[in-house]
Amino acid sequence: MAVGAAIDEPVLVEATRGDLIESRHRGVVAAVDVAGNVLLEIGDIGAPVYPRSAIKPLQALPLIETGAADAFGLGDEELALACASHGGTARHVSIVEAWLARIGLGEADLRCGAHRPYDANAPRALYASGGRPTPLHNNCSGKHAGMLNTAMHCGDAPAGYMAADHPVQRRVLDALQDMCELDLDQSPVGVDGCGIPTIAMPLRSMALGMARFAAPVSLLATRAAAVERIRAAMAKQPALVAWQGTFVTDVLTTTAGNVIVKNGAEGVFCAALPALGLGVAIKIADGASRAAEVATMAALTRLGAFSHKQAAALTKRLTVPLRNWTGTLVGELRPGDALH
Amino acid sequence: MAVGAAIDEPVLVEATRGDLIESRHRGVVAAVDVAGNVLLEIGDIGAPVYPRSAIKPLQALPLIETGAADAFGLGDEELALACASHGGTARHVSIVEAWLARIGLGEADLRCGAHRPYDANAPRALYASGGRPTPLHNNCSGKHAGMLNTAMHCGDAPAGYMAADHPVQRRVLDALQDMCELDLDQSPVGVDGCGIPTIAMPLRSMALGMARFAAPVSLLATRAAAVERIRAAMAKQPALVAWQGTFVTDVLTTTAGNVIVKNGAEGVFCAALPALGLGVAIKIADGASRAAEVATMAALTRLGAFSHKQAAALTKRLTVPLRNWTGTLVGELRPGDALH
Repeated sequence: MAVGAAIDEPVLVEATRGDLIESRHRGVVAAVDVAGNVLLEIGDIGAPVYPRSAIKPLQALPLIETGAADAFGLGDEELALACASHGGTARHVSIVEAWLARIGLGEADLRCGAHRPYDANAPRALYASGGRPTPLHNNCSGKHAGMLNTAMHCGDAPAGYMAADHPVQRRVLDALQDMCELDLDQSPVGVDGCGIPTIAMPLRSMALGMARFAAPVSLLATRAAAVERIRAAMAKQPALVAWQGTFVTDVLTTTAGNVIVKNGAEGVFCAALPALGLGVAIKIADGASRAAEVATMAALTRLGAFSHKQAAALTKRLTVPLRNWTGTLVGELRPGDALH
Repeated sequence: MAVGAAIDEPVLVEATRGDLIESRHRGVVAAVDVAGNVLLEIGDIGAPVYPRSAIKPLQALPLIETGAADAFGLGDEELALACASHGGTARHVSIVEAWLARIGLGEADLRCGAHRPYDANAPRALYASGGRPTPLHNNCSGKHAGMLNTAMHCGDAPAGYMAADHPVQRRVLDALQDMCELDLDQSPVGVDGCGIPTIAMPLRSMALGMARFAAPVSLLATRAAAVERIRAAMAKQPALVAWQGTFVTDVLTTTAGNVIVKNGAEGVFCAALPALGLGVAIKIADGASRAAEVATMAALTRLGAFSHKQAAALTKRLTVPLRNWTGTLVGELRPGDALH
């Protein structure tokens, strides 16, 4: 009966309710330095994982390296949104909209599809004013604006920018291969939630890419400068990388960007620790975001990523109180034994 | 490293994307007949599980058995809503509101808390008209109205109806103990999302309760009549037990109520199969609803719950196409080997 028992994925996070552990989340954790040394390994870190949006900071590299960002005078707001899974608030939407106008395009050129804004407060404001979700509200609209910006700068046709063989995606692939030190030509490939390719890689390689993003010592000067600029943008605009009240925005804000974290769909998380020269990648087997956040927090704490003051400020991100609709404390999310 | 590997919870559902199985959901399945014989057992069916909302049809028994339903002239709509995790649409809300008025109470007496309606189309209508979510929109408001109705009929003070020692909850506990043939006095207890107690029991016992709900041959005549009435109400008002487009409403509609299914939070599902005299209970270890639906569908199919025509109509509930925000087919949810 123990089908799948061969899969090495320990319990990383537990959800309690009253007297019982009600639910359990399994997964895999890798922490790697720039030389590829593995400092933390839980589960099978060699199994292929789709990075989804957790590597958006790496996908944004060509936007800077092609000169597209400078050509159109992008600031921290646009660069943070290029790395974002944002909340679709009026602020997120208006910056992306103005950015598209600046490159001579508009909402109709976005091919990411529309969905209800992720910020829980945003739908009410949107609907109460008679609005409807558009591709601008899509959490990936900043990444797509960045890709369109690169296309316009490089003279690529903006239409079809999502296809794997479009120059925009080829440049992204090259950056990923270089940062993660992988040949991705034969890797499993899928279509991401917003329509662009997502290419699977071992969690170990994803962590290596983030280590090099954390400590770009071995990179070419142009690449190193692009990395520093993206990190600075995420640090300065934490509420544009996600939205107020989220784990990502909270960690970026609390650490002043000294701990860079980015979430992806299906329970993926990446982190870059410049002070330690480490990259971290996490996949929750069942795809749950709530568990990916707690596991990331636990792994980062164990790696010594936070000062005492930061850890204290983030304590409710490590052991998360669970309240029901009446406000009653009913349980908690907490790290499992594998992450203690 | 294999912490938690001792837990017997095979992979029940897989989520694919492109070339890869992206995520996996483990869990436990029990199918039992009225004599307690186990017909299907996957994982540890003796481990305690909070039933959450999956046993609402059993929690509704005192509403009928006390005479409260008849005293206030309840029809199928109210009884279906008493068993519901509903979508908070205008129809759900208006029926609960009228019901509360009939028993001399109102929205302010509901103690379930407020949340955004679960039907994805409902928030727009609500916010566009200047409304806000109220306790009436809570998916459990029908269950709470039923509990208040019982209290009013029996002369209990309606205030405090959520407390474990309130007569309303004592009657619910008695019904659960009797149906599941368990003494729950020493069982792990937690607070449910809507504030009432949820009491853990082995999945085997939950399935037994549903078997007796499916085939009430061994029950007292009053109990058997109450069971038949609840089943009939769920069959006749499938869109009030959940909402249009949901798995629960779809299965109830397609089978004309011959297959009764009810979801609970944190990946719990119960089913009653009157034609086969079977009860089924399922828990997804990580709490994911998407997996609980596929696992329920797979288990019911394996048990022979569906005619060929019903199975054909429900095929997209067994292997669920996953589309992204652009409408592209990106993968599927499907049963894992343990459920083939």
